[in-house]
Amino acid sequence: MIKAAVLGATGYAGVELVRLLSNHPEVQIEVLGSQSFAGQGIDEVYQSFEHILDVKCEELDLDRVRGCDVVFTALPHGASKEVIPALIEQGVKVIDLSGDFRYDDIEVYEKWYGQKHSSPELLKESVYGMPELYRDKIKGARLIGNPGCYTTCSILGTVPLLKSGMAETKNIIVDAKSGVTGAGRSAALPYSFCECTENMKAYKVATHRHTSEIEQELSKAAGEEIIISFTPHLIPLKRGILATIYVNLKQKSSAAELTEMYKEFYKDEFFVRVKDEGHLPETKFVAGSNFVDIGLCYDERLQRAVIVSALDNIVKGAAGQAVQNMNLLFGFDEKTGLKNAGFYL
Amino acid sequence: MIKAAVLGATGYAGVELVRLLSNHPEVQIEVLGSQSFAGQGIDEVYQSFEHILDVKCEELDLDRVRGCDVVFTALPHGASKEVIPALIEQGVKVIDLSGDFRYDDIEVYEKWYGQKHSSPELLKESVYGMPELYRDKIKGARLIGNPGCYTTCSILGTVPLLKSGMAETKNIIVDAKSGVTGAGRSAALPYSFCECTENMKAYKVATHRHTSEIEQELSKAAGEEIIISFTPHLIPLKRGILATIYVNLKQKSSAAELTEMYKEFYKDEFFVRVKDEGHLPETKFVAGSNFVDIGLCYDERLQRAVIVSALDNIVKGAAGQAVQNMNLLFGFDEKTGLKNAGFYL
Amino acid sequence: MIKAAVLGATGYAGVELVRLLSNHPEVQIEVLGSQSFAGQGIDEVYQSFEHILDVKCEELDLDRVRGCDVVFTALPHGASKEVIPALIEQGVKVIDLSGDFRYDDIEVYEKWYGQKHSSPELLKESVYGMPELYRDKIKGARLIGNPGCYTTCSILGTVPLLKSGMAETKNIIVDAKSGVTGAGRSAALPYSFCECTENMKAYKVATHRHTSEIEQELSKAAGEEIIISFTPHLIPLKRGILATIYVNLKQKSSAAELTEMYKEFYKDEFFVRVKDEGHLPETKFVAGSNFVDIGLCYDERLQRAVIVSALDNIVKGAAGQAVQNMNLLFGFDEKTGLKNAGFYL
Amino acid sequence: MIKAAVLGATGYAGVELVRLLSNHPEVQIEVLGSQSFAGQGIDEVYQSFEHILDVKCEELDLDRVRGCDVVFTALPHGASKEVIPALIEQGVKVIDLSGDFRYDDIEVYEKWYGQKHSSPELLKESVYGMPELYRDKIKGARLIGNPGCYTTCSILGTVPLLKSGMAETKNIIVDAKSGVTGAGRSAALPYSFCECTENMKAYKVATHRHTSEIEQELSKAAGEEIIISFTPHLIPLKRGILATIYVNLKQKSSAAELTEMYKEFYKDEFFVRVKDEGHLPETKFVAGSNFVDIGLCYDERLQRAVIVSALDNIVKGAAGQAVQNMNLLFGFDEKTGLKNAGFYL
Repeated sequence: MIKAAVLGATGYAGVELVRLLSNHPEVQIEVLGSQSFAGQGIDEVYQSFEHILDVKCEELDLDRVRGCDVVFTALPHGASKEVIPALIEQGVKVIDLSGDFRYDDIEVYEKWYGQKHSSPELLKESVYGMPELYRDKIKGARLIGNPGCYTTCSILGTVPLLKSGMAETKNIIVDAKSGVTGAGRSAALPYSFCECTENMKAYKVATHRHTSEIEQELSKAAGEEIIISFTPHLIPLKRGILATIYVNLKQKSSAAELTEMYKEFYKDEFFVRVKDEGHLPETKFVAGSNFVDIGLCYDERLQRAVIVSALDNIVKGAAGQAVQNMNLLFGFDEKTGLKNAGFYL
Repeated sequence: MIKAAVLGATGYAGVELVRLLSNHPEVQIEVLGSQSFAGQGIDEVYQSFEHILDVKCEELDLDRVRGCDVVFTALPHGASKEVIPALIEQGVKVIDLSGDFRYDDIEVYEKWYGQKHSSPELLKESVYGMPELYRDKIKGARLIGNPGCYTTCSILGTVPLLKSGMAETKNIIVDAKSGVTGAGRSAALPYSFCECTENMKAYKVATHRHTSEIEQELSKAAGEEIIISFTPHLIPLKRGILATIYVNLKQKSSAAELTEMYKEFYKDEFFVRVKDEGHLPETKFVAGSNFVDIGLCYDERLQRAVIVSALDNIVKGAAGQAVQNMNLLFGFDEKTGLKNAGFYL
Repeated sequence: MIKAAVLGATGYAGVELVRLLSNHPEVQIEVLGSQSFAGQGIDEVYQSFEHILDVKCEELDLDRVRGCDVVFTALPHGASKEVIPALIEQGVKVIDLSGDFRYDDIEVYEKWYGQKHSSPELLKESVYGMPELYRDKIKGARLIGNPGCYTTCSILGTVPLLKSGMAETKNIIVDAKSGVTGAGRSAALPYSFCECTENMKAYKVATHRHTSEIEQELSKAAGEEIIISFTPHLIPLKRGILATIYVNLKQKSSAAELTEMYKEFYKDEFFVRVKDEGHLPETKFVAGSNFVDIGLCYDERLQRAVIVSALDNIVKGAAGQAVQNMNLLFGFDEKTGLKNAGFYL
Repeated sequence: MIKAAVLGATGYAGVELVRLLSNHPEVQIEVLGSQSFAGQGIDEVYQSFEHILDVKCEELDLDRVRGCDVVFTALPHGASKEVIPALIEQGVKVIDLSGDFRYDDIEVYEKWYGQKHSSPELLKESVYGMPELYRDKIKGARLIGNPGCYTTCSILGTVPLLKSGMAETKNIIVDAKSGVTGAGRSAALPYSFCECTENMKAYKVATHRHTSEIEQELSKAAGEEIIISFTPHLIPLKRGILATIYVNLKQKSSAAELTEMYKEFYKDEFFVRVKDEGHLPETKFVAGSNFVDIGLCYDERLQRAVIVSALDNIVKGAAGQAVQNMNLLFGFDEKTGLKNAGFYL
């Protein structure tokens, strides 16, 4: 039994962490940090927890957090800059859900986030928390940069094709659609019910920060620098990202061949489900679960692969992947606490 | 470890049973019955189960079902009339989710369902599966009539007041609102997305079958015959029932007094959460969980209690309550497999 | 052609007024008042107006407004207290969408709104803007108190029964459900998409201000003081109110009799559609239109009428009724600008 | 005043035609054809029309239809094959909303629709009903092939760039998202509320029929054969298509330049609104209206234009465009009956 803290526990990623950890047999939730709701029980802020979890939210107190084995920081970018180094120094494992520790190259971070990085040394040491790609490194890490939601969906959907050598590396396009929880727990007008429902839109075209994170991983997979078009869209549902990925191929292929190749690539991965040929993911298949579903199409007229990948942005795209990383860090079975079927309904 | 069968496994109540049972530590899912999808894996019909549950749907075969310890029949009213007696005879415990075994009085059933009852003897023996009211009887039963969704919400919200003797028994009104899963997995036009979303309506005013089931239990609680107004409404969401219940009181009271009385009444009930005074239920607090939430208001101008109760119609209103009943039948902790926090998001 | 101003033009009631007025053949939109968006075109704030209406929002300037023939004040309660008297003095007709000028009795207003009324003299003179009940008075008025959304739905659904003398005046219950536009254009967290969708709740039970407005009109219709239970609910859709109204009857009746009586009562009213016996309203039938639909049920076991009425809260419940009032004030055909079919889809 | 018939009046495109025509000052609705609902009033099938339009649906009777000036055929592909030639012969103008008369090349039609064309002669004569591209031809036509919803959105968003000569003609990708009305009035399970809401998916990847229609028009605009990737997605809302279009450019450009070019191209088009630089379309800006909104982005890292276009699939994508075509056919102002602001809410 390990002790865990969640800082930023009342945001949507934070509360999903609380939901998953409250059901994890090896974890004791010790500290829930929340500036806005300090003093209130988590079951007051999210009344779904009544009778389930009786822990009070509290303001950040390093002495309290320090006694934990693992700390999840689910705070805005840059907000944990004093906390994380202090914790690492104390030997506490940190899984950071912000963008701060996801980059190999500090310049890429500073360019896309428009701010100096506060802990360049730690950035160097941190491990990108995508178990399907970096399982071994994660196991020994002190600090995990937990990947973004769009990025997990895009990277896991594209990497096998890039590693196969079949892909042209130019003209890769990721057209991604996200539910509204992706914007966090926000009272801003554009995320109000009447403005969001019955509406859809693209936003931050060619400028979204996740572009750089996707490119970093695709470039490593391809062994050369890759620049992509990445377009996020806001869709009127709560949970779910669907990414439609267009990749030209160097030679003729088929849906069958692509499917087989992906199935082989992910054959040991519990949380990646490659659909049979002719089947495509839908976000309701993954809602509430830690799965990524991937479907492969082939456009023979254009010699182009069209890959559709789907996940739940606050589970595999945030909290679930963080728990998966925690399982690796502490030597638990990687699936612990993450084996329940999703919602569908 | 007991063996379970779900007949009607691909309807919405059925598949929610499968979801809950797949996460239950004492249950092995042995048989999934589905006429429409026989031969297909449950993870093909509901692809959220991929990697989670690998069981094929099959047509009804009594020999297969007979080997189970418990059978859940989630079929339309009257559809299990040959199956259930045969199973009971074999010593298999049956939890029936239809209306067939919920009634004390066969005439009430036959009047409201417009058909002869096929097993009057079994009806006499069957126990109404509402643990909060009939826990002891359930423990020793062979056949459970699992309550309806509207009825569970209405009954648990009203019974304490009736048992207290504070209530006038005339002019009780239950105005209930349900999400669309209440209609089952239906391809009928009125339940299509474009006809349902951005719409609401009342239906079956003063004629819905659940009226008789609610009246049966309220009458027993009050010790006199009670006739109510019950109005169901269709609301554009998936999961959730909210019942607003109006009860005149014999003398002055207060929200504080009513709240305290309900808290006392349900103090040992894990799955009933009486809200603190001034707080009201919302369906998102119960979605995906087996909880019923109840909030008490008092209208001093009218000496009237207004009770708001909420549950997830396919969990506490169907599949979750069925699992709760199963836990009682087999001597498991009543909360087993039902302790996860709900969805909220 | 008359000149119109809308103050509070960028709220939801305000912008619906703009939508309707922009399509009204006798109206020139002269001034759009908006503090938050002064300087921006209405087609920037609501981009649906691009190519349709090219008017800039402006801060309140009495000199500008004074030149108009009619001013719609769609501001929060109390906010127009200096503006309205000044306009009335100048001979400008005012249609006020707040609660300020809806009451016969200043004490009722002050009790339910918790504030002193700023213009008791004007309150006395103002006319309650419900054409179906006060058409003649409206025609000659200088100041209209435009009714609330819940209230229009509840009053038009109940008045015929009360006027008929068939109704018991005790135990009248109005259980009302509203879409989220009823909360106005709000950035508050409870109205955010992720908190609202897939959720429903009751709120302000027995304390909502509209209770007093409904009681005022029902009491006048009945010729005696009537106190009701009124319960508002928040439902995850944009437009629409559905009120389910329970009224005990003095003697036996039938759905046929009730329907006939309502059809007779409203036979000259274009905007009230009494459904044929056996049919009930749905909010999609009225969305986007100025209609109120009313369906009559009779519960013979309880000698009780159950009336279901539905309207679009920002049309007949706000902006559409305001335009209807304007038509009467200026001698236009009452239906002018309001004859388009609603949305359904 | 002309007389109009709508065949297939109770489907979603049909009923939207009825809604628009009922508000058109130059049109008398004479015949509403509906096999499923013959004998019922349109205001029974769609109760939003009560008090607005009192016309009975009827089975197809050529003698009745023949007396009209214009007939809209909103039937499935191939279903009008006997009707249309007969009407044309009688001198009735026909606007066909199916795919049957949209093609220049009969082989393309037969390949993508998998059936022989029944009226090759008429296909030759028919005019593609996109006024922004073929206004003059439409004016003199006898038979209009009214464009598809995805296609209108995609073509109007791409043609200016292709005509400018700035575009590379390879690697054009159209990633399109549609609301559920696009599937028509369907009782099929995948379009049921509980299966659609909170879900999104891609479908018919690289095989959707609209691909061929888009390619036909893009090829003409470019002066060379163009093959595109076209991916449709189903999104949980009723009305709206959003297309995100990726086009590589031959040389450097900018959002400003692209925007200016599009504004110039469409400067005389009332129904096309090119957004100012930095602004993007949202489907709520066009819902219920005949507008297409187009926003231009430029990805300087990739020398690629990303164009976002949006329309209401049953208005500009079907019924509204049909009315626009009718206005041209009969010499009415093109905007007649189509000038109302859309819904936004």
